[in-house]
Amino acid sequence: MSESYESERRAGGRTGGRTDGLDVAALQRRLAAFAAARDWQQYHTPKNLAAALSVEASELVEIFQWLTPEQSARVMEDEGKAARVEDEVADVLAYLLQFCEVLGIDALAALSAKIDRNEGRFPVNGGR
Amino acid sequence: MSESYESERRAGGRTGGRTDGLDVAALQRRLAAFAAARDWQQYHTPKNLAAALSVEASELVEIFQWLTPEQSARVMEDEGKAARVEDEVADVLAYLLQFCEVLGIDALAALSAKIDRNEGRFPVNGGR
Amino acid sequence: MSESYESERRAGGRTGGRTDGLDVAALQRRLAAFAAARDWQQYHTPKNLAAALSVEASELVEIFQWLTPEQSARVMEDEGKAARVEDEVADVLAYLLQFCEVLGIDALAALSAKIDRNEGRFPVNGGR
Amino acid sequence: MSESYESERRAGGRTGGRTDGLDVAALQRRLAAFAAARDWQQYHTPKNLAAALSVEASELVEIFQWLTPEQSARVMEDEGKAARVEDEVADVLAYLLQFCEVLGIDALAALSAKIDRNEGRFPVNGGR
Repeated sequence: MSESYESERRAGGRTGGRTDGLDVAALQRRLAAFAAARDWQQYHTPKNLAAALSVEASELVEIFQWLTPEQSARVMEDEGKAARVEDEVADVLAYLLQFCEVLGIDALAALSAKIDRNEGRFPVNGGR
Repeated sequence: MSESYESERRAGGRTGGRTDGLDVAALQRRLAAFAAARDWQQYHTPKNLAAALSVEASELVEIFQWLTPEQSARVMEDEGKAARVEDEVADVLAYLLQFCEVLGIDALAALSAKIDRNEGRFPVNGGR
Repeated sequence: MSESYESERRAGGRTGGRTDGLDVAALQRRLAAFAAARDWQQYHTPKNLAAALSVEASELVEIFQWLTPEQSARVMEDEGKAARVEDEVADVLAYLLQFCEVLGIDALAALSAKIDRNEGRFPVNGGR
Repeated sequence: MSESYESERRAGGRTGGRTDGLDVAALQRRLAAFAAARDWQQYHTPKNLAAALSVEASELVEIFQWLTPEQSARVMEDEGKAARVEDEVADVLAYLLQFCEVLGIDALAALSAKIDRNEGRFPVNGGR
């Protein structure tokens, strides 16, 4: 799916994200190439990737575990903590994208569709 | 950060993702607007958002919990399961993006930097 | 409540866990019999049981997800929430005990040994 | 192992949990004393304890993350992995017991009641 997404984007003349690779499709390609070059795809079953994603999500929770809500809001002011937070965000995103790649899911489209549905399920009150 | 990212994208003339809103910045804006319109930002502390992310990640694991690796590879062939998987992927991504928005983290940049670091930490053997 | 449970047990002269099965070994036997009678042991690999345990732990987190620390301290005052909390505690304990049963781990002994180690690792300051 | 533990306790004529503290109530007292002596109760809100429990549960999952079902069944044969597994089991149990202590929940009673309910919800077929 990432290949057809890529060619569809090019065919339409869109740059589809920044040229230096900061778009989802490019990151998915880098992640897939990284795993393939090290022969790691054997481990990347959807079940294992979902488990890995949940493990990384917990590592993100762990950073905040004993912090008060106020301390958690200021976490990026601490250089060491900020680096850990960005590292775990990267890990969560990495496993989410690899999970989607293996199952052929377009994560951004799935989220866009979900927001559409939620806008219907949780309408804003009139007069707000 | 999402605002400067947006104006930077416009200033450079890049479409930075598809015009129908399927890029990370647009999704973050939709999520933020959705929460603001319902006065939900009060709940969106980084600590709560990290916990919510881990809860959704576990809901994704739950779909695969009793499946064999073979069954998990074929999960998208079952219409009901496929819908649940896409739904949980959307939820995980939603909380990850909202978490990043609140803390001013660029998730795609964080992942790109992480892959750079990993390529150094886990070099591929010569001749491979 | 743990103190009244303990004194109730002593006052009645009961031994080694209560005769109605409220000790860990008896619960493990009931859980094993329950699974065996329904032919569910095939699903109870250590990997699956660990995943199931993490899923239930997340369901426990979910109850508190949007609560403030103050609201979370009063959660047992709400009948519906209290029932959910007890239900998830039971589920977490169930999977933990089944996990231990399958791998031959004595959970109480493991914890006792860990507390011993921690008392060495985190000594209390003199004069405290 | 749970059967031999039980018979060892009975054969020695020991009562209400072993005198060296291997019962739930004794472990809860040791955990509470450990936290109080270090002034850690301030961190032990139900919400934080639930999050800590989920983090430890994920650390248990992590041990099995890339293992096949067959490898996971043999994990206790590897000394290093076995020690990690016992350590995480202890951590999960520790936070579960502290969570229950703070909220006044009897974990064993909650599980016993749940098994009773499940025996009604999932009856075994006649003739089995």
